[in-house]
Amino acid sequence: METFIIRKATEKDVPVLLSLINELADYEKLTVVANERSLYEWIFEKEKAEVLIGEYNGLAVGYAVYFHNFSTFLGRAGIYLEDVYVKPDFRGNGFGKAFLKKVAGIAVERGCGRMEWTCLDWNLTSIDFYHAMGAEQLNEWLLFRITGEKLNQLAES
Amino acid sequence: METFIIRKATEKDVPVLLSLINELADYEKLTVVANERSLYEWIFEKEKAEVLIGEYNGLAVGYAVYFHNFSTFLGRAGIYLEDVYVKPDFRGNGFGKAFLKKVAGIAVERGCGRMEWTCLDWNLTSIDFYHAMGAEQLNEWLLFRITGEKLNQLAES
Repeated sequence: METFIIRKATEKDVPVLLSLINELADYEKLTVVANERSLYEWIFEKEKAEVLIGEYNGLAVGYAVYFHNFSTFLGRAGIYLEDVYVKPDFRGNGFGKAFLKKVAGIAVERGCGRMEWTCLDWNLTSIDFYHAMGAEQLNEWLLFRITGEKLNQLAES
Repeated sequence: METFIIRKATEKDVPVLLSLINELADYEKLTVVANERSLYEWIFEKEKAEVLIGEYNGLAVGYAVYFHNFSTFLGRAGIYLEDVYVKPDFRGNGFGKAFLKKVAGIAVERGCGRMEWTCLDWNLTSIDFYHAMGAEQLNEWLLFRITGEKLNQLAES
């Protein structure tokens, strides 16, 4: 019997999580700086994110990482979905939707008003998928970032 | 002697915080659902966000709200700046920069790799200011949101 389950990650999942993160980064053409130690520290010790692992017949085939964000205008927390990933060979089976549904359920259960995430503009497959899930695209909001040496400079300015 | 200080908000600041949030919402042409009770619950009880108040000669003239986000690729938390606001009559004195510097300092102190935030695309004054602070604009990332009844539907799908 074929089974797909989504379960909370434990500390033992750090190696497989890093492997899946690397796969997603390859797909998104991005660079991974994370290592097993940093994932363990920030996810399991400092508890700055929550992780779900998707298993198909006992094999880890995908993951989701999320954390709480906060809207001052709503006056309550939401959930920000940092990553959702399903291995290419296992797509088209509804596993991606199962992850979104699971995280949406957690948001509702915790009284969070909304769920948000970002997607690269060339990833049309995912964009279509998100629209089909009922998501709205917030084109009027621009994203800014300060990182590395620029962050240090600002802090010391 | 004129003084500007930035301090951590306490529970007693909830009314003035709500008042400042409403001012920012007016400026951004957005609607506030938050009330004193929800701000108290999610900020001071559930600790989903941290708040700074800026005081000029003892008067609250601005605020910043931030929380930790998390990057799987960096393998560590960052800081997301949800709001930064200075009352119109008190702009042009470097108070906005003082807020950014303060939050950047907190990010560095906590070992966070980066600070991120969003800005409305018509708010050119703020966009120029953020560029001047050394921020990069991440145009390739699109923001998605599911909220309210659509969130419930996804959770129950």
